[in-house]
Amino acid sequence: MNSLEPITELIESEVPDDVSIARVTYEGPELIVYTDTPRKFAENDHLIRQLANEVKKRITVRPAPGTQTDPSTAKPVILDLLPEEAGVTNLGFYPATGEVLIEAEKPGLVIGRRASTLREISQKVGWTPEVFRTPPMESSTVANVRNFLLQERDERREFLEGVGERIHRERTHETEWVRVTTLGCCREVGRASFILSTPETRILVDCGDKPGAEGEVPYLQAPEANPIAALDAVVLTHAHLDHSALLPLLFKYGYDGPVYLTQPTRDLMGLLQLDYLDVAAKEGRTPPYGSEMVREELRHTITVDYGDVTDIAPDVKLTFANAGHVLGSAVTHFHIGDGFHNVVFSGDIHYEDTRLFNGASNDFPRAETLVMESTYGGRDDYQTDQRDSEEKLFELISETHEAGGKVVIPAFAVGRSQELMLVLEEAMSEGAIPTMPVYLDGMIREATAIHTAYPHFLRDELRQRILHEDDNPFLAEQFQQVDGGHDMRERIARDGEQCVILSTSGMVTGGPIMSWLELLGGEPENALMFVGYQAQGTLGRRIQSGRREIPFESRGRRNNELTLRLSVASVSGFSGHADRAGLEEFVRTMSPRPERILCVHGDESSTDQLSSGLYQDLHVRTHAPRNLETYRFD
Amino acid sequence: MNSLEPITELIESEVPDDVSIARVTYEGPELIVYTDTPRKFAENDHLIRQLANEVKKRITVRPAPGTQTDPSTAKPVILDLLPEEAGVTNLGFYPATGEVLIEAEKPGLVIGRRASTLREISQKVGWTPEVFRTPPMESSTVANVRNFLLQERDERREFLEGVGERIHRERTHETEWVRVTTLGCCREVGRASFILSTPETRILVDCGDKPGAEGEVPYLQAPEANPIAALDAVVLTHAHLDHSALLPLLFKYGYDGPVYLTQPTRDLMGLLQLDYLDVAAKEGRTPPYGSEMVREELRHTITVDYGDVTDIAPDVKLTFANAGHVLGSAVTHFHIGDGFHNVVFSGDIHYEDTRLFNGASNDFPRAETLVMESTYGGRDDYQTDQRDSEEKLFELISETHEAGGKVVIPAFAVGRSQELMLVLEEAMSEGAIPTMPVYLDGMIREATAIHTAYPHFLRDELRQRILHEDDNPFLAEQFQQVDGGHDMRERIARDGEQCVILSTSGMVTGGPIMSWLELLGGEPENALMFVGYQAQGTLGRRIQSGRREIPFESRGRRNNELTLRLSVASVSGFSGHADRAGLEEFVRTMSPRPERILCVHGDESSTDQLSSGLYQDLHVRTHAPRNLETYRFD
Repeated sequence: MNSLEPITELIESEVPDDVSIARVTYEGPELIVYTDTPRKFAENDHLIRQLANEVKKRITVRPAPGTQTDPSTAKPVILDLLPEEAGVTNLGFYPATGEVLIEAEKPGLVIGRRASTLREISQKVGWTPEVFRTPPMESSTVANVRNFLLQERDERREFLEGVGERIHRERTHETEWVRVTTLGCCREVGRASFILSTPETRILVDCGDKPGAEGEVPYLQAPEANPIAALDAVVLTHAHLDHSALLPLLFKYGYDGPVYLTQPTRDLMGLLQLDYLDVAAKEGRTPPYGSEMVREELRHTITVDYGDVTDIAPDVKLTFANAGHVLGSAVTHFHIGDGFHNVVFSGDIHYEDTRLFNGASNDFPRAETLVMESTYGGRDDYQTDQRDSEEKLFELISETHEAGGKVVIPAFAVGRSQELMLVLEEAMSEGAIPTMPVYLDGMIREATAIHTAYPHFLRDELRQRILHEDDNPFLAEQFQQVDGGHDMRERIARDGEQCVILSTSGMVTGGPIMSWLELLGGEPENALMFVGYQAQGTLGRRIQSGRREIPFESRGRRNNELTLRLSVASVSGFSGHADRAGLEEFVRTMSPRPERILCVHGDESSTDQLSSGLYQDLHVRTHAPRNLETYRFD
Repeated sequence: MNSLEPITELIESEVPDDVSIARVTYEGPELIVYTDTPRKFAENDHLIRQLANEVKKRITVRPAPGTQTDPSTAKPVILDLLPEEAGVTNLGFYPATGEVLIEAEKPGLVIGRRASTLREISQKVGWTPEVFRTPPMESSTVANVRNFLLQERDERREFLEGVGERIHRERTHETEWVRVTTLGCCREVGRASFILSTPETRILVDCGDKPGAEGEVPYLQAPEANPIAALDAVVLTHAHLDHSALLPLLFKYGYDGPVYLTQPTRDLMGLLQLDYLDVAAKEGRTPPYGSEMVREELRHTITVDYGDVTDIAPDVKLTFANAGHVLGSAVTHFHIGDGFHNVVFSGDIHYEDTRLFNGASNDFPRAETLVMESTYGGRDDYQTDQRDSEEKLFELISETHEAGGKVVIPAFAVGRSQELMLVLEEAMSEGAIPTMPVYLDGMIREATAIHTAYPHFLRDELRQRILHEDDNPFLAEQFQQVDGGHDMRERIARDGEQCVILSTSGMVTGGPIMSWLELLGGEPENALMFVGYQAQGTLGRRIQSGRREIPFESRGRRNNELTLRLSVASVSGFSGHADRAGLEEFVRTMSPRPERILCVHGDESSTDQLSSGLYQDLHVRTHAPRNLETYRFD
């Protein structure tokens, strides 16, 4: 607690005489100031900002235990302060931290202009309010994660205090160098994982699986990654399994430190990892960890918002920025050694705006090194313009509608499904295609609900619609969840009405899409439309390539092969990844221009071609690393 | 001992019925077969070769304890078998291993044609003879090292048995990759050190200091190097301190495994390391280890001859080849994973033949990766042809002789001094310069004596002269050791006779050269000649650049500055390093041509320029790594 003494003294000397400081402590990267006079603190709305500037840390003020109004008295006072329209759905008091957690449909109305309502609450009852959004679509994931973390609140406080002390420990090494070690996703797509290290600190960035190659996991046994238990921090750029699937394994290997991520990444990660375990079990594989490790991981998460500069080690500051790829996805910036070096991991990015997200941020105070995704980095990886793609899609849907058929679209639950929902909702409301039911099967509805819980991570216009116009396109009535299992699917299939079905899995490797092919695949008036990447070795790719006889686990049928007679089409242009032009633009317009670029997360030719392309066009040093290499910077 | 059972069975099944195998054991990389019937074994001179082919390992046969003739009886029998001219100087019996160690002036005569005499000894007395050369110049280093290892023989046997078991352990990892980590000497000269690793094995290659920058040691704290104690092997390419100085430190850090090197490298290393400790003590620095660590290191040495393919790990075979740089220096070839990959470390090389050594070998069964020295890799690093250099040297010496002056040459004890001795001896015998005394001061004589102990490591012609013509140029009578300390120096200085003085240190950073400058520097008829590289920051470089007032630790004088009045000249062309042309030729003529080259051991511009030069001329992938990087191969 040594490092806290000077800070405590500084704070005590800065506050007015009538404000009393009970205790100062760390909670992860944040400094928590407990005060015996919470109401006085709340009266002075500049005081916290002034203190934060003074100590150069993020500060949260909480009432010291025993200074608050009794919860039974406080609750009606708080509710009285909030407008009816705020839609409070939950109110919980946590005496250990002096916080009152308020979950509301309209958090903005709980917060008030410039947080005036929050301050008023503190002033009146002495509790510190923390506000969450009640998702407009009910999400069991969001509810479960939040409830779990609330249950674990006291245990987590101890953990966070320890993390804070470690982050703010005295530095014992000069920042003489910065190294990046590639543990995966080099000259391949999948198993994203890196070690970022300095003489003082080791940080793991991402820890994914390799879809279609279950045995190929990140090289966690590399000496640069060991001992795993002594890593300072784990940072997750986004929730997709090729970045997150093996993260819980770290806790099995003795890691006990923080996992930094955005709030939506935390919830989506939980959803996808539990599904990953389910799928493994269904396919008869032994998953590398159990669900208790997912809980262990959640217990260790520390969420960070876009733009918040956060100390995560004595010599490393982390800043997330929007990556445009998937909800909560982050371009991840590390500021190392007080300006010694800055490394940016692009994670997966989409450079242009999409309906769902703003395009990836590429503006940084400093950035000498860029570790860059290259999924579509190949010389010819130019995608169709999304407008053109949409027109093709509308045409195909309209034709099928006209023929009295149904459209089946295999889609990834997280990201591309929501983009398609927005495309279809707009097309129907504008009359570009006939209005008809859009059925959501698999995890799509749940993933969509998580999107509605975090509107601040969506594209400006979309957020605006959701927040201020009560015009949430995801809630449009044509979107209907398939939740009666196979019975409901059979009913929909038998029903004569035309419809669109969005169903997982996105590469036809299992899941409800199999039932849909069985139920609708035999009728030539129906249509199957691929809108996403179909990887080598998947059934989706085989159908795309012309195969029509497909194997089936027979469901009462004698024959377990099915002949597809429905029409099959592919529409590109809906990818969550920047294409070659987008990747180049990301770097070309990046401010400042990086001095060195490692092209990763793409197959061998893509990384090679992006690397030499960037070198030729921009004259920066570029590399296409292999797995298990270590690069040194400065 | 599991891995020995099948080998023992194989050997037992291969030997004739009258040959009895008592025990089979490992001694480092070698297989030792103890027999109860040593005389029978010796009768069949093909048997050992046949067995070695069968088990694919080097085999040594020794008599089982108790089967030998009593030493007091055996000694006269052995001496009787050896010709008088063999010049036996020492004969020792080691009952634990059944060996008789014979040190002789002419080991060839002890061995006999096709080892016939050795076999005869075994047959007659049952002891296995091991033969050493008595250096024609007495060398305390050679004597001390040999005596020390003889004393430690029993303890070492246990160590070697353990090493053998570890080398031949069952492989538990597929050779999926090979990595090289740079711990030093990248974009700099000094602190050579690398880690070569596979999933099964970690090997440290070299561990040197950085002359003129004592604090800058190899990055042994890099995770790739740790734990040091668990390294499989240490390999030393040659004895110079920038490759060997910090090797004893490994034992302080808990390393307990083998150090592979050539015999001359072992002895020279001991000499230089002990001197390194002396110098540190004299300069008031705390050396990083004590002399007991040098002994510890010697205890762990395993010598390997040029060309012997040696198992040093379950998946790694080591082969040394002549590097032409300094006595015992080795181009070091690693054959990894049964042909998975081959890495060559050039160490320091001289490509052309010199008087002392054959030019560096560059012919390998396979070699995909080359880690290449770049000391003179710069665009303009072309050295004067040695013939031209010699003529310039002769001219300067003759002029000084004519003027009645004395020539002082600061020289490195190991390597360049011996080359100069050969140049001067030849010039005097051919009349190119007048015959006059050549005084050797500092470690030069001792280093020269070590050269004479290992004539097989010298250039073919020189070896021939020493071995077969009794015409050892190092023994020429004009070479005189300065061993009376300062008194003798004063006597030589006062003496009117012209002479040449070769004295350490080579960069005028201390040692007897300081006394010579004091004694001879004031007279304009004397000459100071630089023949080697003078590093930035050394007094040698300052004098070379024109400085004539030099500081002195006064020896009874009041003034501690001395004004040099003797003439100063520099003659290049005597380097132990290949120049740019030689480095290029080494690669251009290397068989097979490597696919990738790491240019190391040169300053930033030299490595950069060699790297891009080789890439442009030979179209191989080249790199100029930085320290603390890890490259992956295959």
